[in-house]
Amino acid sequence: MPNPSIRDVLTTLAERGRSLLDLDRYSSGPEKNLTLLCDDLLSMAGEASGVALAKQVIVVYRSLDDAQKGRFFQSMKHRYGPDESKLQTAIRAYEQGASDETLNDINRASEPRRHELLRRLNLAPGGTAALVAMRVDLLKHLRVDSSLAMVDKDFQHMFSSWFNRGFLVMRRIDWNTSAAILEKITQYEAVHAIRDWRDLRGRIEPSDRRCYAFFHPALEDEPLIFVEVALTTEPARAIGPILSEERDSISAEDATTAVFYSISNCQPGLRGISFGNFLIKQG
Amino acid sequence: MPNPSIRDVLTTLAERGRSLLDLDRYSSGPEKNLTLLCDDLLSMAGEASGVALAKQVIVVYRSLDDAQKGRFFQSMKHRYGPDESKLQTAIRAYEQGASDETLNDINRASEPRRHELLRRLNLAPGGTAALVAMRVDLLKHLRVDSSLAMVDKDFQHMFSSWFNRGFLVMRRIDWNTSAAILEKITQYEAVHAIRDWRDLRGRIEPSDRRCYAFFHPALEDEPLIFVEVALTTEPARAIGPILSEERDSISAEDATTAVFYSISNCQPGLRGISFGNFLIKQG
Amino acid sequence: MPNPSIRDVLTTLAERGRSLLDLDRYSSGPEKNLTLLCDDLLSMAGEASGVALAKQVIVVYRSLDDAQKGRFFQSMKHRYGPDESKLQTAIRAYEQGASDETLNDINRASEPRRHELLRRLNLAPGGTAALVAMRVDLLKHLRVDSSLAMVDKDFQHMFSSWFNRGFLVMRRIDWNTSAAILEKITQYEAVHAIRDWRDLRGRIEPSDRRCYAFFHPALEDEPLIFVEVALTTEPARAIGPILSEERDSISAEDATTAVFYSISNCQPGLRGISFGNFLIKQG
Amino acid sequence: MPNPSIRDVLTTLAERGRSLLDLDRYSSGPEKNLTLLCDDLLSMAGEASGVALAKQVIVVYRSLDDAQKGRFFQSMKHRYGPDESKLQTAIRAYEQGASDETLNDINRASEPRRHELLRRLNLAPGGTAALVAMRVDLLKHLRVDSSLAMVDKDFQHMFSSWFNRGFLVMRRIDWNTSAAILEKITQYEAVHAIRDWRDLRGRIEPSDRRCYAFFHPALEDEPLIFVEVALTTEPARAIGPILSEERDSISAEDATTAVFYSISNCQPGLRGISFGNFLIKQG
Repeated sequence: MPNPSIRDVLTTLAERGRSLLDLDRYSSGPEKNLTLLCDDLLSMAGEASGVALAKQVIVVYRSLDDAQKGRFFQSMKHRYGPDESKLQTAIRAYEQGASDETLNDINRASEPRRHELLRRLNLAPGGTAALVAMRVDLLKHLRVDSSLAMVDKDFQHMFSSWFNRGFLVMRRIDWNTSAAILEKITQYEAVHAIRDWRDLRGRIEPSDRRCYAFFHPALEDEPLIFVEVALTTEPARAIGPILSEERDSISAEDATTAVFYSISNCQPGLRGISFGNFLIKQG
Repeated sequence: MPNPSIRDVLTTLAERGRSLLDLDRYSSGPEKNLTLLCDDLLSMAGEASGVALAKQVIVVYRSLDDAQKGRFFQSMKHRYGPDESKLQTAIRAYEQGASDETLNDINRASEPRRHELLRRLNLAPGGTAALVAMRVDLLKHLRVDSSLAMVDKDFQHMFSSWFNRGFLVMRRIDWNTSAAILEKITQYEAVHAIRDWRDLRGRIEPSDRRCYAFFHPALEDEPLIFVEVALTTEPARAIGPILSEERDSISAEDATTAVFYSISNCQPGLRGISFGNFLIKQG
Repeated sequence: MPNPSIRDVLTTLAERGRSLLDLDRYSSGPEKNLTLLCDDLLSMAGEASGVALAKQVIVVYRSLDDAQKGRFFQSMKHRYGPDESKLQTAIRAYEQGASDETLNDINRASEPRRHELLRRLNLAPGGTAALVAMRVDLLKHLRVDSSLAMVDKDFQHMFSSWFNRGFLVMRRIDWNTSAAILEKITQYEAVHAIRDWRDLRGRIEPSDRRCYAFFHPALEDEPLIFVEVALTTEPARAIGPILSEERDSISAEDATTAVFYSISNCQPGLRGISFGNFLIKQG
Repeated sequence: MPNPSIRDVLTTLAERGRSLLDLDRYSSGPEKNLTLLCDDLLSMAGEASGVALAKQVIVVYRSLDDAQKGRFFQSMKHRYGPDESKLQTAIRAYEQGASDETLNDINRASEPRRHELLRRLNLAPGGTAALVAMRVDLLKHLRVDSSLAMVDKDFQHMFSSWFNRGFLVMRRIDWNTSAAILEKITQYEAVHAIRDWRDLRGRIEPSDRRCYAFFHPALEDEPLIFVEVALTTEPARAIGPILSEERDSISAEDATTAVFYSISNCQPGLRGISFGNFLIKQG
C-alpha cells in the first residue's frame, strides 16, 4: 500500500462508501437519476455512502442542460418540502398541549427537507462551491419562474448559517496576493471598474491604499467580498481625486481618515447573504 | 494612523460598533446584564454593533459562577423560545390555505429564537470556541436539570450545521505536529490511553502507523476527533500486538490492511455532533 | 517590556551593538565615513556591534551618488586587498619548508580582505540583497574602469559560495504565484519577451506549460533565474508553434517531451554566478 | 508524463546528469570508488553530472566503516591540497611584479582543492546536512590523528561562509513548535539539562520565558543553536530561582530584564562556527 496521503484516505473513504451502493440503477436519464440519487441521499444513515452519493449528485447535476436544471429545481420544490402529514399531527399535538417538545416537533416537521438535502450535498468534496454554483443557476431560473422563490429561501437559509460572519477570514489584498485572486478582484469590482493591472495596482499597492477581502475556508482563494479603502487627510468629497493616477500618495502614518470607497460582492451565488451588510455599515 | 493590520481593522470595526451602544446601562449584576445584552443582540440590525455586543455577552458569561450560568440557561430556555403568538397566527393562516409561504411562516415562527441568538454570538471573535465551551457548561447542568434538554437541542442543531463534515479539514498527525496539538491528542485518547510521549510517539511515528485528526477552521489547532490507524499485513485479531512496543514496524508499502483501532472525540462541547459517526463507520 | 517579537529581539541585539559604538565620529562626508565604518567593521570582534556597523555601512552606501560610489569601489580595491607584508613572510616560511601550515598561511595572507568585508556586510538585515545591489553598481563602473575587475572577482567569489546550487530552492511559477513575483518574471524574461499579463498567463497556466524559478532563502520572493517549459508530443522544431496563442493545449499526461524553450537570469547583480550554467545545460 | 512535481524535475535533472556518466567503473571497493568519484567531481564542468556525482559520493561515503572513513579523510588531505607547482609559478610571477592578478593567482593556487570539492558535494540533494555529518566523523578522527587538522580547517572555512549569520533565521520556540524540534532542543540543551517534557514546557511556555533558535534554510527543522531567556524584574543572582518550578510567572509586560541563562549549540558538526559567539556576546 503506497504511503497514503490525506487525499488518498479521503478518497478511500468515499470509494468505500461508494462501493456500498449500486450506482448502476441510476441509469435512466440524468434528471430521474438525480432525483433518485437525492432520495437515497436523504434516506441513508451512513455518511460514508453519503459522501459518495453527494459526489455523484453533483457530477450528474453538472451534466444537466439549462432546461433539465430548471426541472430539477422544480422537483426540489415539490419533492423536498416539509412533511405535511407529520406537520398536521404536530400541530394537533401542540394544540392539545403546548410544550417544548410539541413546539419542537412543529419546527422540525415544518422544516423543508431541502435543508437536510443541502447539508448532505455539502458532504461532497468541493460541495460548498458546488452549491454556491447551483444557486447561481437557481437565481437565473428564478427570474423567469418565481415559483422557485421558496427553494431559493432554503439556499439562503443554509448559506446564512454556513457563511456566518464568524467563519469568515479577512485578508489584506496587495501586490503579494496571487494573480488568481487579483484577477477575481478585477472581475468582481462592481462600483468603480478596474481597467487593467496597472489600475488594480494603483488601488492596492500605494502606501495610502488598502484592500481587504473576506474568505470562507471552504471556498479557498475565492474572495466573497472585498472593500477598497483610501487613507486620506480629510473626508472624501468626491471619488475623482481618490481614483486619480496623478495624486501623490501619502504615508499611512499621516492619514487621519479611512474612506471605504468601494465594496464589491464577488459571489453571485451568495447574493443577499448578510456578511455584505456588515461591511457596508462600516462604509 | 499606524499602518493598520487586519486585526487593527477588525478591532476598529468592533469598537465603532461598540461606540454605537451605551454599555453602561448593563450594570446591575452579571445575569440581568447578560439577558439585557442578549435581548439587544437579538433586536439589533447592524452587525457592527452585533460584533461588539456578542463580544460583551461572552465576556460577561465567562464571569458567571456555576449557579449563575444555570440561571442563564434557564432564561435562555424561557426567554428565547419560539414566538407562539406569531406561530398561532401562522398555523391559522396555514389551515386556511396551505402554501409554501404559510408553511414557511410556520417554520420560521416555530424556530426558537435561540438559533438566531447562537448565530449572533458566533459573530464575536473566538465566538465559535466560546459557544462550544458554553455547551460544556450546559451539558453539566443538563445532567441535573433535564428541563434544559431543548436548549441543548438548539446548540446541537446549530453545531450540526456549522460542523458539517464538508467544513472539516483532515490533517495527518505525526512527530512534526506541534506539541500543543499532540498534548491534546494524548489527553483526549479515549479508547486506549496514551501513557506518555514515548507511547504517543509509538503511535504516530512508525512507518506502519497513522494518525489523522479533523479540524474546523474556526477552532484553530483544536482537533475535533482523531483516529489511529495501524497498517498491517492481516486483519487485526487483537489490540495487544498493535500496541506492543516490541513489534517490528513494517514498511507502508508492504501493508495490505488499515486497521482503524481507535477513534476519540476531543470536544466534549461537540458531543453527539455527527462527524463522529462518519469515521466510526469507516472503522 | 512588551511581548518581544523575533524582530524586536533582533533589533534589540543590533541596537545593543550599536550602543557600543560612537557613531558620531563618522561625520565628515559620506565616503570618508564609509571607509572608516568599513575599517571598524573589519577590525572588530563582536558580531553584535558588527550587525550595527554593517547596517550603517549599507545605509551610508545607499546615500552616495554615482561618483562617490565609484570612489568607494576604488578604496575597496586599494584598501582591502591582501596583506602583502604578511604574504611575503608566509612565502619565505613556505620556501624554507612547505607544509600544510605554510601553505595555509599563504592562502590566508593572499586572500583579499574584501572577502571578509563582504562576509561581515552580509550580517546586516537584508545584507545579501544590499550586496547584490552593490554589485549592480559595481558592474556599471567596471564598464568604464577596468581596474575594478579584481573587486568584482571578489564579489563573484563570495556569491558563488553563497548561491551554491545546493542552497537554491526551486518553486513552480503559476497563476497562484504572487503578482509581485509574476511581474518580475515578466520584466526579466530575456529570450522571448512577455508582452502582457495575458501573454504571461499563456506561458504558466495551460496544462502543457510549466515555469520554474530558483530562489535563495536570503532573497525572499526574488527569483534568481527561471525557466519556461513546454510539454509536447514531439521535439520542438521552432519556437513559433510553442508561443502561438492559437495552439490547443494538450494534457500533461499525453506529453512525451519537455522543451526548455526559455531561461532568464533575473538578477543583474548575480551575472556570471554559475547556477545559470546549470539549468542551461539541462535545456 | 505525470504532472511533474518540483521533486520530479530535480530528480530528472539529476538522473539526466547521471546518465551522462558511466558509474560502473566505480566498482573496486568503496574507498577507491570514493576517490575516483571525487576526482571526477572536481574535474567535470557540467553541474548536472555534478549533482549526480555528488549524490553518489555521499551514498558511497555513508557505506564506509570507521577505518575506511579515516583513510578517506587522509586521501582528502593528501590528494586535494593546493596545486603547489601552480603556486610556485604564481609566486615567481608575483615576485617579478606584484599586481592584483599575480596576488589573485597566488590566492587561487594556494587554495586547497578541498574547498571546491566541498562546494560541489553541496550540490547533492541534502548535501549540506551530509557535509555537516561528515565533519562529525572528521572531528572524531581528528582527536586521534591531528594530521587531519588542515582538512578540518577547510570544513570550517566553508561552513563559516555558508552559515554566515546573515543566512540564519531566528524562530521562537514554544509549545506550538513541532515535537521533532522540541525533542532536539531537549537533547541538545548543554547548560541546564532538560529532564522531561514537563521541564521543557516550563522553559518555553510561561509568560516570562522565551526560547529562540537559529535555523539554516538548507537544514530544515534542524536547530543550529538555541538560547533560553527568562524575563525577570531584576538581574538574576542565581540560576536556581529561574529554573524552580515553584516560582510564580510574571507577565512579560512587567519584566525589566531579559536573562539569557542558557545557550546550546545543537550541531556537533558545526563546532567552532562563529554564529555561536554572536549570541553569547548578547548574554
